[in-house]
Amino acid sequence: MSVYPIILSQADFTNRDSLTYPFEERGLQFGDGIYEVIRIYQGAYYLITEHVNRLFRSAEAIKIDLPFSRQEITSLLHDLLSQNEMTSDGIVYLQATRGSAPRNHAFPVDTPANVYAYVQDMPRKTKNLTNGVSAITKRDTRWENCYIKSLNLLPNVLAKQAAQENGSYEAILERDGKVTECSSSNVYLVKDGKIYTHPATNRILHGCVRMRVEQFAAGLNIPFVEQAFSIEDIADADEVFLSSSTSEVMPIVEVDGKKIAEGIPGKTTQMLQEAYEVDAGLVKQRI
Amino acid sequence: MSVYPIILSQADFTNRDSLTYPFEERGLQFGDGIYEVIRIYQGAYYLITEHVNRLFRSAEAIKIDLPFSRQEITSLLHDLLSQNEMTSDGIVYLQATRGSAPRNHAFPVDTPANVYAYVQDMPRKTKNLTNGVSAITKRDTRWENCYIKSLNLLPNVLAKQAAQENGSYEAILERDGKVTECSSSNVYLVKDGKIYTHPATNRILHGCVRMRVEQFAAGLNIPFVEQAFSIEDIADADEVFLSSSTSEVMPIVEVDGKKIAEGIPGKTTQMLQEAYEVDAGLVKQRI
Repeated sequence: MSVYPIILSQADFTNRDSLTYPFEERGLQFGDGIYEVIRIYQGAYYLITEHVNRLFRSAEAIKIDLPFSRQEITSLLHDLLSQNEMTSDGIVYLQATRGSAPRNHAFPVDTPANVYAYVQDMPRKTKNLTNGVSAITKRDTRWENCYIKSLNLLPNVLAKQAAQENGSYEAILERDGKVTECSSSNVYLVKDGKIYTHPATNRILHGCVRMRVEQFAAGLNIPFVEQAFSIEDIADADEVFLSSSTSEVMPIVEVDGKKIAEGIPGKTTQMLQEAYEVDAGLVKQRI
Repeated sequence: MSVYPIILSQADFTNRDSLTYPFEERGLQFGDGIYEVIRIYQGAYYLITEHVNRLFRSAEAIKIDLPFSRQEITSLLHDLLSQNEMTSDGIVYLQATRGSAPRNHAFPVDTPANVYAYVQDMPRKTKNLTNGVSAITKRDTRWENCYIKSLNLLPNVLAKQAAQENGSYEAILERDGKVTECSSSNVYLVKDGKIYTHPATNRILHGCVRMRVEQFAAGLNIPFVEQAFSIEDIADADEVFLSSSTSEVMPIVEVDGKKIAEGIPGKTTQMLQEAYEVDAGLVKQRI
């Protein structure tokens, strides 16, 4: 899963070994930047328009001037794939910081944003998609503006690490008695034929796959209810699942060591997985 | 205020122009690190023991293994000053990240922390210390663990920028109706001869100068009450001031465009400023 050799840096392409940053970089000293991870299937982007739009929303929210238009970055990202002759399943990681400048909290003047993007292989998680994964629950300690996809990811890092140390795939986060999302994915509960998830407020990332899940549900005539549930509700759930660009629609079959219903992926989740595969133009690859 | 030429990187000294970081750095991609800013007066550190101890508390809180003992980093920081023949007023900036590794939220294995420290000149803010500064108030949107001096500083950056755009020195942050601290300093209110400030919980940084202010107050027989106040309380305050390693004990004479009492630095603040100057071994330098 190494990084492909050609990297996008600003509007240029460079070799991965030649791209370095000075120690006075606002990403490195303040986490002062934003990012996107876009899924690639067989060398083609999935939901690239949605991701690029969100990048611009994040940039606007923290007032970073991106040095390109939506069309320009989209074109550069496509060039990045062709330059690397990328034809497999993978991701692109795209980041923009407020630039390199002497350390000072307030914005630097006349300092261009630093942008880079790189590609790496990432096979679909077919085994997890088929069998489901386990999760733990954790207190959501993040800041108030989780809708901004920023580089301030320390609480997410700590939650994911706690999950991993527990042998789990993800950490389901709870704030003020309500489940918000996971450390790097949105989360949903199915009960009595309805899908419940936290509303798209400032407390969660507005996932690109989450938007698609809402559409898939509409297409399947499954009510999609933007209403937060609690950790206690999980005990009575018929199904639980998560979604993200790297995890797709992923069944959660166990939370905090307790099985969800029968402890196997549920029917609603599987219908959404099939809708995802159709939407993303995927052949079924589950083992 | 440029960076002195010799920089501490890991346990070595290197030239500032040769220190760069790869794009897969956890500081740059997650803000996954911690830092300290230590005041230097006439080439000597002030409160270095307190800062080094806090660095280790921050590291422990987010489980970063620092590659040195307290004694070792203290010795290296002293070497940094002598190598640069630093004899003026300034600061050292010291940072430790979880290292450089392929991007993944969970901790990388067998990856050493990346540590660097550099020195720069920073004269005392004598004019502001004498005349006081203005502040605005802002909602505290940060995460729950502000006692960790982490690199996740985006909300602090946005608050400081808002203050600066308003022509103010700092932003006083409010959460759940209570003033916590400022974007990069602790804040205090004086009323009827008592000093009030937010208790040293996880909601504020436990400032090294804040600890000293508490001691100065004890020496001056001024009650130091760790009890949060509200923005409404500020309107009736006798004095307001802030403290930090770079701002020392700084009078706030105006908040949101309204004068505090007479709009000049108060007597209690001035007594604390004098105690600070004695403690830091400073000759009075105010203009």
